[in-house]
Amino acid sequence: MRNVRVGLWGFGAMGSGMARMLLNKKGIDIVCVCDRNKARAGKSMYEVLGVEKLDRPEVIINSNPEEVFTEKRIDVALLATDSFTRNAFDKIKFVLEKKINVISTAEEMAYPMAQEPELAEKLDKIAKENNVSVLGTGINPGFVLDLLILALSGTCEEVNHIKASRVNDLSPFGKAVMIEQGVGITKEAFEKGAEDGSIAGHVGFIESINMITKGIGWNLNKVDQTREPIMSSVYRKSNYAEVKAGNVAGCRQCGYGYVDNEVKIEMEHPQQILPHLEGQNTGDYITIQGTPNINLQITPEIPGGIGTIAMCVNSIPHIINARSGLKTMLDIPVPRAMMGDVRELIEVEIEEKVEA
Amino acid sequence: MRNVRVGLWGFGAMGSGMARMLLNKKGIDIVCVCDRNKARAGKSMYEVLGVEKLDRPEVIINSNPEEVFTEKRIDVALLATDSFTRNAFDKIKFVLEKKINVISTAEEMAYPMAQEPELAEKLDKIAKENNVSVLGTGINPGFVLDLLILALSGTCEEVNHIKASRVNDLSPFGKAVMIEQGVGITKEAFEKGAEDGSIAGHVGFIESINMITKGIGWNLNKVDQTREPIMSSVYRKSNYAEVKAGNVAGCRQCGYGYVDNEVKIEMEHPQQILPHLEGQNTGDYITIQGTPNINLQITPEIPGGIGTIAMCVNSIPHIINARSGLKTMLDIPVPRAMMGDVRELIEVEIEEKVEA
Repeated sequence: MRNVRVGLWGFGAMGSGMARMLLNKKGIDIVCVCDRNKARAGKSMYEVLGVEKLDRPEVIINSNPEEVFTEKRIDVALLATDSFTRNAFDKIKFVLEKKINVISTAEEMAYPMAQEPELAEKLDKIAKENNVSVLGTGINPGFVLDLLILALSGTCEEVNHIKASRVNDLSPFGKAVMIEQGVGITKEAFEKGAEDGSIAGHVGFIESINMITKGIGWNLNKVDQTREPIMSSVYRKSNYAEVKAGNVAGCRQCGYGYVDNEVKIEMEHPQQILPHLEGQNTGDYITIQGTPNINLQITPEIPGGIGTIAMCVNSIPHIINARSGLKTMLDIPVPRAMMGDVRELIEVEIEEKVEA
Repeated sequence: MRNVRVGLWGFGAMGSGMARMLLNKKGIDIVCVCDRNKARAGKSMYEVLGVEKLDRPEVIINSNPEEVFTEKRIDVALLATDSFTRNAFDKIKFVLEKKINVISTAEEMAYPMAQEPELAEKLDKIAKENNVSVLGTGINPGFVLDLLILALSGTCEEVNHIKASRVNDLSPFGKAVMIEQGVGITKEAFEKGAEDGSIAGHVGFIESINMITKGIGWNLNKVDQTREPIMSSVYRKSNYAEVKAGNVAGCRQCGYGYVDNEVKIEMEHPQQILPHLEGQNTGDYITIQGTPNINLQITPEIPGGIGTIAMCVNSIPHIINARSGLKTMLDIPVPRAMMGDVRELIEVEIEEKVEA
């Protein structure tokens, strides 16, 4: 069998991270990269990554998707360009119509039926018409607060209530994230930002809660979300932010899923810099009340950046193997690390000949 | 769509537990039960369970599989009769040839390619010829020390080493388990039993280790196992066993998976009564060394009996949806609790008409 062929659309932190990971894998090649960023377009992918090309074929980053994603040129395109289905839609459609499978990092694409049911239906139809499939995944949504909960529920005869929390440290992230989460500002500025939408918080609770209720067969009738400032009582300073005592260290987002008008799912995702300065350990925590009760913790939390990169790349064989259409983590076998030859995970025929 | 139809073969603790669970689910019916135990055969399933029949059709436990498993009578048969593939083989073959999907609790069936590659190949062939599928699952093997590890690995770019431990309390189990694990005997008696095979320990490490290495793409070249007595320094007494200080409280089993002659997987499963009397908490523990490192704990451990019952029942829709052949937890979407109508999880056509 020939090597699996992959292309990337978007070459920021996620896209370039996926490229780095792929270069260490066997039986899989990066064939093309699309990125509209002028600082990168026209350059060698290897130069941008700071990785030796060795005897691999050259890959020049191209800003024109028409030139990059020609029909059947690759088996899978990894799209790391957007957070919202609405913004990613045209790109995904374009690639699917080239008879190429798509994996998207867009948070809403982890369960697009939740907030964009019409677009989800369209994507399903386009994918089926072109005999390919499309999946959204990542660490969260995609794993910690949905797939992992669902996997635990498989050991339960009954589930009555789910509570989950992901406590992380934003310190490694850059300026943009500090602004989105309100790190370092006053309480008043945070409240204004939360109202006008500039404090974005976490995108994904609605998707995770919908994926869980659909997966378990609960009749979800409402999702509520709250965003509140995490007030720091101590001075905190990281590479990209400074928080005075009495100011905001980050954003605590909570989500509530109502099933038959009762809160059945509670999620909490406090994102801040240096939580340990106030005795708060980071980690992923899940409690299921049911038969049996389950109490899980992962400490520290699975890191967001690496986790998202790995979930997308490790899903490649499964989206190739999948029946055509729009898929979610409910549909494919659980992705796992790929330490061997990726081709051994491919169960379907992949065409030897591809268009130039 | 008509209700999903299920049959049971084996009506001991696991089989009857699955029946109880199924009776609380929507869109799925127990159609038939096969059990050779003379105390149960000929009786109503409801009478044996101590559950009201209500307006459900009667199900009489029948000891003759020829009468129970007629062609296409049911969609899935749950087999809870054996631990070893060799012993379960004829039963599984018989049911598959009636064009009925099979889920087996036999520990070795979780990954029969590990110890019975020829039988595994035969089962795959028989299942494909009859356009049905067969799966082995349970809490362990099937979840804690394999699928859960694999799921975590999906968030990793690289995995270098895996260590996992399942620490449980045998107190709820009966006399037979006490004997199998050597609870209450002397060190000398334990060593004799471990040598002659009467101290059976845990069945499943070889399957779990093979499933992980196959799933991750590691080249497994050896599995070692050890069994040693857990010596009690205090007096322990439970409903079914008594342990004097200085005698054996249970069996600590360890398993080691070698990849390219290096130990890459370490598993430990100490099974004893009342471990907390010596300060040992029960739980499931997984540590992955890789990119990133992951450190998970579930405390207390997911209980074995309920967990196995739930994993088998919750896998029903997925084995109906699966392509034909021998399947493992590597192949199907992750099973989850079924709190709604089971029929909503069925993605393939199930025939309206079935043979009488």
